[in-house]
Amino acid sequence: MHYAKPLARLVGELEKLPGIGPKSAQRLAFHLLRIPADEARQLAASIMDVKERIGVCSVCFNFTDQPVCDICRNDRRDRKVLCVVADPRDLLAMERTNEFTGLYHVLGGVISPMEGIGPEMLRMRELIERVQRDEVKEVILATNPTVEGDVTAMYVARLVKPFSVRVTKIAFGLPVGGDLDYADQATLIQALEGRREL
Amino acid sequence: MHYAKPLARLVGELEKLPGIGPKSAQRLAFHLLRIPADEARQLAASIMDVKERIGVCSVCFNFTDQPVCDICRNDRRDRKVLCVVADPRDLLAMERTNEFTGLYHVLGGVISPMEGIGPEMLRMRELIERVQRDEVKEVILATNPTVEGDVTAMYVARLVKPFSVRVTKIAFGLPVGGDLDYADQATLIQALEGRREL
Repeated sequence: MHYAKPLARLVGELEKLPGIGPKSAQRLAFHLLRIPADEARQLAASIMDVKERIGVCSVCFNFTDQPVCDICRNDRRDRKVLCVVADPRDLLAMERTNEFTGLYHVLGGVISPMEGIGPEMLRMRELIERVQRDEVKEVILATNPTVEGDVTAMYVARLVKPFSVRVTKIAFGLPVGGDLDYADQATLIQALEGRREL
Repeated sequence: MHYAKPLARLVGELEKLPGIGPKSAQRLAFHLLRIPADEARQLAASIMDVKERIGVCSVCFNFTDQPVCDICRNDRRDRKVLCVVADPRDLLAMERTNEFTGLYHVLGGVISPMEGIGPEMLRMRELIERVQRDEVKEVILATNPTVEGDVTAMYVARLVKPFSVRVTKIAFGLPVGGDLDYADQATLIQALEGRREL
């Protein structure tokens, strides 16, 4: 390949990103070459900025540029209800619903023996501390509907139940707009088990 | 959305990249948050580096970090044969064949009245100068098999013919490993027109 060295290096760095293959990396690199230096500089600066200024909230462990995040500082949020998620992206997905008015607790992953991640590597202790300190009334488990997500949810449930807190789990079932005919068996079983009285 | 500001800015910058939608931008941003600061810094630095150190070759207009690119400085290349391409990515595609041993000329785009790009905005004058100065024997047109690519190829052909140079165009036809049954009509017509005696 006849890449000039700085270009080869950029393509290499871009290839390390998730979902970016050699072809996309090349396309992105050439795009960055083509655009004005100012625009490229803004991207580079925003990458550095994020690394320097974003940390985790000391309460819920969501990403934030403050010691305590916007959600945890919001007085209109119900501090007695905690939604437990695996990572900040899941938190964002929940926020997008505009339905949940409690606070969050970001575990920082899911229990996964395959990847060597045990519960002691997640923010379990911090969750218990919050439940006790803030006299939490309900813990909503919002982990992904996967084996690891379920195991993690069950672990959290057992962990917080001794503190006489209500523990619920978000419903699994058919996605809205979905098609019975196309639903996989596991989803249909969940949908059936989660059926409600009309 | 509950992005902290520096994170929102990074997502915005990433969304400007070609082929990166809001979802990918978010995934990339969270990836950059997760990786060690050093790795993120390397990406940012390589973006800046490319903007500072990469320019175009003064002979063929390929991207290079030298005044004249590696290909143009290579003595073992045949300087009497020029392959004309629209942009540096096409040059790389040709290089990958390991078959072409001449030099290149990068036009910097294709003629496109729709996008307001006329031949005077491409490196046509520089091409004529090279053809004259280096006594080029053959100009191989390697523009994309599109309307704009063809129009550009025809324009270049008319431009250099007066200098008694052989003008050829790379063959269009069925891609190797392709399927007649799946080939579009235009490709089949090209394949038929380009048929050769066996």
